[in-house]
Amino acid sequence: MSRFFAKRFACLQAYTPGEQPTDQKYIKLNTNESPFPPSVGVLQAISETAVKDLRLYSDPECGTLRQAIADTFGFQKENVFVSNGSDDILNFSFMAFCDGGVAFPEISYGFYQVYADLYGLDAKKIPLAPDFSVKAADYCNIGRAVVIANPNAPTGIALSCKEIEEIVTSNPDHIVVIDEAYVDFGAESCLSLVNEYENLLVVRTFSKSYSLAGARLGFAIGSRALIEDLEKIKYSTNPYNVNRLTLLAGTAAMHENDYYMSNCKTIAKNRAYLTDALSQMGFTVLPSKANFIFAASPDVDGETLYLELKKRGILIRHFSNEKIKNFNRITIGTMEEMKSLVAAVKSILNGDTNEGG
Amino acid sequence: MSRFFAKRFACLQAYTPGEQPTDQKYIKLNTNESPFPPSVGVLQAISETAVKDLRLYSDPECGTLRQAIADTFGFQKENVFVSNGSDDILNFSFMAFCDGGVAFPEISYGFYQVYADLYGLDAKKIPLAPDFSVKAADYCNIGRAVVIANPNAPTGIALSCKEIEEIVTSNPDHIVVIDEAYVDFGAESCLSLVNEYENLLVVRTFSKSYSLAGARLGFAIGSRALIEDLEKIKYSTNPYNVNRLTLLAGTAAMHENDYYMSNCKTIAKNRAYLTDALSQMGFTVLPSKANFIFAASPDVDGETLYLELKKRGILIRHFSNEKIKNFNRITIGTMEEMKSLVAAVKSILNGDTNEGG
Repeated sequence: MSRFFAKRFACLQAYTPGEQPTDQKYIKLNTNESPFPPSVGVLQAISETAVKDLRLYSDPECGTLRQAIADTFGFQKENVFVSNGSDDILNFSFMAFCDGGVAFPEISYGFYQVYADLYGLDAKKIPLAPDFSVKAADYCNIGRAVVIANPNAPTGIALSCKEIEEIVTSNPDHIVVIDEAYVDFGAESCLSLVNEYENLLVVRTFSKSYSLAGARLGFAIGSRALIEDLEKIKYSTNPYNVNRLTLLAGTAAMHENDYYMSNCKTIAKNRAYLTDALSQMGFTVLPSKANFIFAASPDVDGETLYLELKKRGILIRHFSNEKIKNFNRITIGTMEEMKSLVAAVKSILNGDTNEGG
Repeated sequence: MSRFFAKRFACLQAYTPGEQPTDQKYIKLNTNESPFPPSVGVLQAISETAVKDLRLYSDPECGTLRQAIADTFGFQKENVFVSNGSDDILNFSFMAFCDGGVAFPEISYGFYQVYADLYGLDAKKIPLAPDFSVKAADYCNIGRAVVIANPNAPTGIALSCKEIEEIVTSNPDHIVVIDEAYVDFGAESCLSLVNEYENLLVVRTFSKSYSLAGARLGFAIGSRALIEDLEKIKYSTNPYNVNRLTLLAGTAAMHENDYYMSNCKTIAKNRAYLTDALSQMGFTVLPSKANFIFAASPDVDGETLYLELKKRGILIRHFSNEKIKNFNRITIGTMEEMKSLVAAVKSILNGDTNEGG
């Protein structure tokens, strides 16, 4: 730390992203990316002409993309905000709407706590139920902003739209941010509530179901007034933060929604396969609606399993938090990747040694 | 504004980007983009494979690109920070280093005031000299953080490296941020001072001299401790904010530095041509070291000239600020564009009408 750094950030614990190794080819099941490439239209959109046009700034209003998103989900362009990934939108939301305090699940996306610390917010962390689910009742009439990932991460467990509505209606004077990063893999979206409730903001990403993690694109859908507020923050920090090529890619992806939704169904099938296979080996596997599962073995602790799989060229995500340290979060990949994982787990449980580095 | 928006942002005046019209082909001389496309290596780097890999997150450490930048400018990777455009880095710098107040020129890049407002900072705006230059002495021993664009925008006038050094040495307990967005077009960089002064941060962009405005890439060079602080802010807001394709493009651009520096020399020649041509028409043209000039005519006010040129399909940038309202900022483009501009200005001064829309 330099001696010029703001004192209020001295103890700030930044987010720790999943490993992005550059040294070796891993089966990468640690950051919930899609195993499927972007659609044909995306590949075509990033043409030589588009690359040459990188000399020009991107459209800060992101008009074409916002319209395409609005059309896909049945909203007006003015209900859609786009930015550099859903992290960016969550960051803006904590900055803009949570001065009066915020509540989120104690076990959830680790960035919520980071944002709360960054802006010095009063953060109420609500424990999960013993079955690791989020209980809607815990957030009703809570008198502060609410942020919930639905499905939750890293558990994968989802709330119903009706439960979300209970939270939203019982907190009319506070914003409720529903982070639907993983919703396309089998959970119920609450987008249908947006036109009814001015305090609901739904945050989505192109990083998971739309195979564009490396393009950096997220969007939010909410009332016009909420979107205007987010625009104001964006125009006060970095108005051009979405790349020209990403605007093209996102628009093309919206026009090929069927391809991506079909991929999501494949992920759900592969998830069922992995859940069965690990359950048969004695694992506790939480009921996931996301493109990952959260699983713990009675025979090998979470960190050991993570390290042993890494030795075998498979990356999964382990969290050191005491309450979940026996679990690992495993991204759902192709069936081939799932079979490789299952074989590797079997060999670890059998105590086979591995010499490979 | 929604009723959920933080009260402290209620009066925030966001930055107004230059127009990015999508409705018509303009000669676009309003946002200081490069008229030259990215280099061949950049076009090659954004391959079909690279686009398919967009399903994966980008490297949050940006290791390869940071090394390429370090090699180009003679630093260690640990002295280099990269982020989503230099706006992003300026935003982080105001957030991280300016709690004790900040000083910047009254007439400069408009975003400095926005950042100061956003973070509720005490901002001292120092008037320019009557010749529109920044006076180094005004910033010496000032007892607060200093942010200076060098060359300054929208004037284009530059300080020498020696003058920057005076500011840096006289404020050893405060950071001095030198925004060198336009330095490659003829001004003296102060990068040579970075290894000597731990309170100096030099901010650069790929948007101007590197023809990559739409790729969103900026970098900063400073002491390891300052870079660590910036990394902490990035990892606490949006660690993956640089796109995968942009990492490839930026790395390729660094390997073809000669192409870009040769383009900068062409811009300097075209700037000399435009300066002469407008001076001959009676314009006051400030002595610019940037890829734009700042010019005022005794015969037509700034806003009228802007509007008349727009009617003729040429966009330049007009600012409503009272002190500079007779001036316009005109980006230096190709010689052909400069000749079109000069012809259009002549026709406006001659009072020719224009029927076109």
